[in-house]
Amino acid sequence: MFLEAYYHRPKLNWAYALDETTIQLRIRTKRDDVDAVRIFHGDKCLPWSAMTEAPMTRIVSDERYDYWETEVRPPYRRLCYGFILCKGEERRWATENGFSEGAPTQHLGLYEYPVLHPEDVFKIPAWVKDAVFYQVFVDRFANGDPAIDPPNVQPWGGRPEYDNFFGGDLQGVWDKLDHLSELGVTAIYFNPLFDAPANHKYDTRDYLKVDPHFGSNDLLKRLVQACHDRGIRVMLDAVFNHSGQTFRPFVDVLEKGAESRYADWFLVRKWPLRVAKNGIPTYETFAFEPTMPKLNTANPEVRSYLLDVARYWIEEIGADGWRLDVANEVDHSFWREFRKVVKQANPEAYILGEVWHDSIMWLQGDQFDGVMNYPFANAVLDFFVFGHHDARRFADRVSELLVRYPKQALEASFNHLGTHDTVRLLTLCKGDKRIMRLAVLFQFTFAGVPCIYYGDEIGMDGEFDPDNRRCMEWDHSRQDRELFIFHRDVIALRKKYSSLRSGAFNFLRAEERDTLLAYERSDGSERIVVLMNPDEDTREIAVPLSGGRWSDAFTGQAVDVSGGICKVRLDPYGFQVIAATRAEADVQAVDGNEKANKEGVS
Amino acid sequence: MFLEAYYHRPKLNWAYALDETTIQLRIRTKRDDVDAVRIFHGDKCLPWSAMTEAPMTRIVSDERYDYWETEVRPPYRRLCYGFILCKGEERRWATENGFSEGAPTQHLGLYEYPVLHPEDVFKIPAWVKDAVFYQVFVDRFANGDPAIDPPNVQPWGGRPEYDNFFGGDLQGVWDKLDHLSELGVTAIYFNPLFDAPANHKYDTRDYLKVDPHFGSNDLLKRLVQACHDRGIRVMLDAVFNHSGQTFRPFVDVLEKGAESRYADWFLVRKWPLRVAKNGIPTYETFAFEPTMPKLNTANPEVRSYLLDVARYWIEEIGADGWRLDVANEVDHSFWREFRKVVKQANPEAYILGEVWHDSIMWLQGDQFDGVMNYPFANAVLDFFVFGHHDARRFADRVSELLVRYPKQALEASFNHLGTHDTVRLLTLCKGDKRIMRLAVLFQFTFAGVPCIYYGDEIGMDGEFDPDNRRCMEWDHSRQDRELFIFHRDVIALRKKYSSLRSGAFNFLRAEERDTLLAYERSDGSERIVVLMNPDEDTREIAVPLSGGRWSDAFTGQAVDVSGGICKVRLDPYGFQVIAATRAEADVQAVDGNEKANKEGVS
Repeated sequence: MFLEAYYHRPKLNWAYALDETTIQLRIRTKRDDVDAVRIFHGDKCLPWSAMTEAPMTRIVSDERYDYWETEVRPPYRRLCYGFILCKGEERRWATENGFSEGAPTQHLGLYEYPVLHPEDVFKIPAWVKDAVFYQVFVDRFANGDPAIDPPNVQPWGGRPEYDNFFGGDLQGVWDKLDHLSELGVTAIYFNPLFDAPANHKYDTRDYLKVDPHFGSNDLLKRLVQACHDRGIRVMLDAVFNHSGQTFRPFVDVLEKGAESRYADWFLVRKWPLRVAKNGIPTYETFAFEPTMPKLNTANPEVRSYLLDVARYWIEEIGADGWRLDVANEVDHSFWREFRKVVKQANPEAYILGEVWHDSIMWLQGDQFDGVMNYPFANAVLDFFVFGHHDARRFADRVSELLVRYPKQALEASFNHLGTHDTVRLLTLCKGDKRIMRLAVLFQFTFAGVPCIYYGDEIGMDGEFDPDNRRCMEWDHSRQDRELFIFHRDVIALRKKYSSLRSGAFNFLRAEERDTLLAYERSDGSERIVVLMNPDEDTREIAVPLSGGRWSDAFTGQAVDVSGGICKVRLDPYGFQVIAATRAEADVQAVDGNEKANKEGVS
Repeated sequence: MFLEAYYHRPKLNWAYALDETTIQLRIRTKRDDVDAVRIFHGDKCLPWSAMTEAPMTRIVSDERYDYWETEVRPPYRRLCYGFILCKGEERRWATENGFSEGAPTQHLGLYEYPVLHPEDVFKIPAWVKDAVFYQVFVDRFANGDPAIDPPNVQPWGGRPEYDNFFGGDLQGVWDKLDHLSELGVTAIYFNPLFDAPANHKYDTRDYLKVDPHFGSNDLLKRLVQACHDRGIRVMLDAVFNHSGQTFRPFVDVLEKGAESRYADWFLVRKWPLRVAKNGIPTYETFAFEPTMPKLNTANPEVRSYLLDVARYWIEEIGADGWRLDVANEVDHSFWREFRKVVKQANPEAYILGEVWHDSIMWLQGDQFDGVMNYPFANAVLDFFVFGHHDARRFADRVSELLVRYPKQALEASFNHLGTHDTVRLLTLCKGDKRIMRLAVLFQFTFAGVPCIYYGDEIGMDGEFDPDNRRCMEWDHSRQDRELFIFHRDVIALRKKYSSLRSGAFNFLRAEERDTLLAYERSDGSERIVVLMNPDEDTREIAVPLSGGRWSDAFTGQAVDVSGGICKVRLDPYGFQVIAATRAEADVQAVDGNEKANKEGVS
């Protein structure tokens, strides 16, 4: 056995409380090295003879590793444990003390998850993993109240520039809620709404006031209520890493320098505030952008101010969560307090961090619920859209995502395929909607919360900022209604099948030097199999399916799986999703046996 | 390259802020697999051309892995990075995206330590790593005030039982401070002092009152002051996992059951409180001990009560830290608040958790400063005392300890070789003080805070509890004064040489099927080499020492290292410690060259 490849530590994604009674444990071993893994575990205060043993499941594999998982429910909440790696007749016992060729005989030296404390369980609001989000960039979504348009507002549908305005506002969103309801989304992610000079509002002037060109706090409160009445939740964007340069405290510092009572609200490397010749400001900022001075979240006044902001919009306005801009650059200590304040204001509020890279630091239950899943988007784009990878490599990449974080954080991950910060999906697909559909279908059948960037659903394209922020197209004749219906249907699919939201994920086909893809999502009540042909040729795909009465998940048409094989012909860039309830599968298995018996005697 | 053995993740002991300007990064590779590792790093907001590269150091190796380390000081506090694994001509770039055969060309996909926030730095009080602790089990240390003896007090020096008393008290400790000063210790760890029925006081009755048989709060306050006047700090024992059964809230629950206003202070599985036939109480306890009911630290009242206790003894009485009993069984959320309260009361207070196993969960800067280092004690005992391991295996084990935690936590680890919970060291050594001395010398020359269990320094022995809690022997004629002097000398050694407290650690000799041991501690100003012969035969040990004017660290006598080799003859279980300042080494190197030149021309 290649023992050096093994990793386990009682922390991170390797050992954590799944809920108030269950501890989830994982290890990695070298891929295809070990035949089986067993866990042995018990309570260190009970006799050694009370230790029990159980098999672990190889849940996924990636390029280099197999990942093994199991759940344990310790009766007295205390757990000590170790693993048995099995390869042929060979056995190795893995504990905190290392590997041994013989079984341990005492609790001391085993791994410990000392006590499962309800207080320490990583809890995500239940609604999150069932949600379908829709991202709204307000200035470009719909203009419902021309009376509050900014000066120099451009005609709707004009060419977006870094600094022009189109008059989109909250009333516009309200007017278009039918579009969202028809589509079936259950939550809106609003880009920032607070008073700020720029069209994107990431340069906040006043954290406690809706931008007057968008509406008012009162209007937002009523809009949130209107959304709630339709079963749509509302997430706001918290830009707490930095303010804008018109933020009053920063204006005061600009005016009074080190004498300002807000001097310590910012992070000044050297007075006076200015931009040095090398383009680098003498104070900390977002990137090196002088108009976005970084807030000193270690200053108790700043902290208290921002926490009040966080509380206000949840408690007073009814927002259902916060998306945290540049979340990775604010201190952990701040986010820990933030979580307490937000969850106290509303335990069902969703906390979503903008982090583009590995986010394990924030996903231990004390900071964020989930992060914007750029690694997911990148893997999907690299495979379906750019064709950089074969099916095996794609499977390896998304498999690793399935075990990268605690399961809760996986299910609360925000799986987008584009945002206001990226080129639009359809543009990346070079306008090929067949490719786009495959990517979106994968998004809606994977673990994590899908989000649609406004307009993607009706075929809007757009290059990088500012072109990705065009005005929403409301003229039905200029919308791709077929694409809209596709989105509506995959949303409905995800809502219908619980396994798509939290079932097990299992690749059925993903081979090297090939693109055909098949995978299954399943839970105790149902099985869903997705078949895809991300290629220019018509292909036949055959996957073994043990029994069952299967049908097309979209059309309901029966699918033939006689002989335990599902054979499907897929058009170029075609797909099929087939589904069976567990009960149907059982019935069919019996039918199949009867049929086989009859055939046997005939 | 055996890439599967690689591990890195920006968290835990792999990437952390060492101080407000420095990020420490580590990776592991398979032992003896990779020749060199380089890091490449930069600021993601600067051009790619501003990335820099630097070598990493293989700091230690254990049985299976080499560990590579480096420090980076990012000028704008932002860091993205990757590693280059080198083997012969082969190169692999390791990033968050995996391994590549070519160098990356963009920041996206690298590892990120997004921003080094002073708020998030793991800070340990500066005094801790320089401290030498002495553990006092009060009832057995010295009886200074017979007027407050418990009933049925036993004559001093009698046979300790689980439940008898000898009248040791705080006045006794005060009377014996000269002993501690002479020994040279700089801190006392007191077993619990608060009002409690048992002689060990781990079954607290009143968390806010010194046990009346030990003295009073006022006396403790004055004793702490007297200790401070001698440069001795005082750490108390916080038993917050459970109370005793005479704790007033628990008495109330015993009386009133579910109706008690304290019902939720404890964790009752099933009313009424009783011990079931299988010996398991119907409420949670320490182990299954019915007299030690577990406190519900999730209850805000309990939390607030215990945090007040934590604050009181620091603020009002002047204690310098808390040792946390059964710390691993209390929730993390409580300890995070505890840290805030304690550090607010005194930023220089030391927080030490009792955890017997891997403690990474608590050693991320938000909970404990250090833990009681049982893995250290076990490694030392297995090698020096039990002879279970050869020198190589011992070196592997303690090397792993050097990289298991962030460096701060390593230096704040509490390195004991026995406590009130274990058989005494001398007894484990079967009375062989030569073996004991080697173990103690290792303890005092390793990273982490050494602690002496009262009486070990004068040759007290004792089997498991209660025998390990005998009365301190104060009759000089019955003390092993030679052993006392040895302890005094190793303490002085540790105080004299900063490298023993925070220098680099490097094994010079530790071979398979052998016991001879040589290692070096060094920092910018000095080098210390320790040579040990943990064997029954006289052995000669030779270690290469590049130049230098070396002398015996205890006697000051010059040591011959001519020819760049230090050759020493060691008695059975003998040792030698030799030292050189960097300056001496440089001078000698010049001398050596001159001598060599002269010899060359003669």
